[in-house]
Amino acid sequence: MGGDYAPEVPITGALQALAEINKAHRIQLVGRTVVIEQTLASLLAGELSAAASLRNRIDIIEAPDVIEMTDKPAVGVRGKPNSSMVVGLKLQAEGKSDGFVSAGNTGAQMAASTFQLRLHQGLTRPAIATLFPTTLKPIVVLDSGANVDCSAEELVQFARLGAVYAEDVLGRSNPSVGLLSIGEEPEKGNAVVKEAHQLMLRAGINFQGNVEGRDIPAGGSDRGPIDVVICDGFVGNVLLKFYEAVAPMMMKMAGSALHLDKAAIEKTFSALDYSEHGGAPLLGVQGVSIICHGRSSARAIKNAIKKAVQAAESGMNAHIGKRLAESQEVEA
Amino acid sequence: MGGDYAPEVPITGALQALAEINKAHRIQLVGRTVVIEQTLASLLAGELSAAASLRNRIDIIEAPDVIEMTDKPAVGVRGKPNSSMVVGLKLQAEGKSDGFVSAGNTGAQMAASTFQLRLHQGLTRPAIATLFPTTLKPIVVLDSGANVDCSAEELVQFARLGAVYAEDVLGRSNPSVGLLSIGEEPEKGNAVVKEAHQLMLRAGINFQGNVEGRDIPAGGSDRGPIDVVICDGFVGNVLLKFYEAVAPMMMKMAGSALHLDKAAIEKTFSALDYSEHGGAPLLGVQGVSIICHGRSSARAIKNAIKKAVQAAESGMNAHIGKRLAESQEVEA
Repeated sequence: MGGDYAPEVPITGALQALAEINKAHRIQLVGRTVVIEQTLASLLAGELSAAASLRNRIDIIEAPDVIEMTDKPAVGVRGKPNSSMVVGLKLQAEGKSDGFVSAGNTGAQMAASTFQLRLHQGLTRPAIATLFPTTLKPIVVLDSGANVDCSAEELVQFARLGAVYAEDVLGRSNPSVGLLSIGEEPEKGNAVVKEAHQLMLRAGINFQGNVEGRDIPAGGSDRGPIDVVICDGFVGNVLLKFYEAVAPMMMKMAGSALHLDKAAIEKTFSALDYSEHGGAPLLGVQGVSIICHGRSSARAIKNAIKKAVQAAESGMNAHIGKRLAESQEVEA
Repeated sequence: MGGDYAPEVPITGALQALAEINKAHRIQLVGRTVVIEQTLASLLAGELSAAASLRNRIDIIEAPDVIEMTDKPAVGVRGKPNSSMVVGLKLQAEGKSDGFVSAGNTGAQMAASTFQLRLHQGLTRPAIATLFPTTLKPIVVLDSGANVDCSAEELVQFARLGAVYAEDVLGRSNPSVGLLSIGEEPEKGNAVVKEAHQLMLRAGINFQGNVEGRDIPAGGSDRGPIDVVICDGFVGNVLLKFYEAVAPMMMKMAGSALHLDKAAIEKTFSALDYSEHGGAPLLGVQGVSIICHGRSSARAIKNAIKKAVQAAESGMNAHIGKRLAESQEVEA
């Protein structure tokens, strides 16, 4: 029920995902049953042959309330226990589902995910992991908005979370981790980053040292490609929104100067298409919670669902728990 | 003598600037006299008619030492009092010049500028003000690298400095100032930004509230265009380097997908050409010190010199002093 185009676009994305994922998987649509039934009926009306088989893999879970995009996260989560957000996450906490995807209120999803699924032992905060397109492979940047002020220890936790995500969901082996700073030397950066650099050297990760802003679009530095970039959620969120805006700005420039049509522009810059990457997982919770942009297209929702499937099938959650437990043993 | 292409490129830029600025202005070339004489002679050899008049407006100031790009700033400044950096800035401190431009070691230029020119009363730190191209007019972003950890009070000082620069050098009347954060609401941001927001509301500037990463490429938010964006030097430097890398990355994508040649690409994205904007002033010192990229082209050096001329002619330095004094009276 969340996001700017609910329920049509999320349900369309769910139908597209069902057609592409393993036929053993089912999707639960959580929200107002009557609205979901009507939307499903109208979306499936035109395609009778495929409709029945897709519809058979959908469960509708009643949740009468909706957390609005403008609701304060904590207020929404506490005040609306029967919202689609809370009900959907509770299903996973109770073992009745393996992953949760939403384009709704991001703050509420973070709060409800942390409350319902709980953090892995040893963690103090969850982090949002976003994919940034580069000239090489996409880079995972975390935290991209869950935490504005982070300690050095929390940045190290994010590095461990991001490394498992890159391995399990993106298929990177022994993912290389960079710490975002303003120079490659260990003594460059603000106080927290300098401390985090020292901790990361002995954190049992494939730490490549500091990376700079320029290394993200490049996909790495002259020391090699980078899979994961660590920063606090203030810097990550500023960068993410900057990147989301600079790409359309340049496409506009290219389009007007070169008299290209929309299709040619989109094809040229297809690597920058955010809907390709679906959603961003909230890492650190004991489960799978994928955060989608409020303005997600059906294609973005579809890809977010496929990402949730991959996270669940790969056992990412258990791997994260194992990695964190190992790091605590080393420290103890 | 500083920068990656010294002395040819800076001297070429100086000659280009002399041809364009008011004929009453002279340029001092500070460095190893013999090297400068030779370079000048070879650059002017081909253009005898214009050569004499340009050469007459150049003074060569001997400075035997050079602070290398790899020197530690403080060590370089203290250990090399006869470097072109220190000698050049001392000329201005002694009233023998009105502005200083360098493509040399940035950290050394900051340290030597602060030591030789001194900060305006009431300031604790200088800030680097960089122009970011946008779909509207360029935005001044400061601090873009002088200070990694900033207090809320320092962010407010940067706002005052940036507003005078935008007015005097960029010709913006009553420049609008935004505070970089992760949401437009005053309660969004990290601890320092939230405190700075409250201080800026009563700082006597045209404060537009928080702006987000997306508002920089857009040139403003739905509340209107923005002239100045305030952030700490860690965030500003990460963004600057990110922007410098994302533009060439997209040009490369456009070039290879559309089979365009270099000239067509450059024309398409000419608004993103950093050499157009020359250098970035170190604001807060009692004088004019323009920091250029180490890899500056002659055109970038020329435009940095023109910017120094404009800063000197507009009386920017005195205006900054006046504005800071007024703000202290209000606070007292």
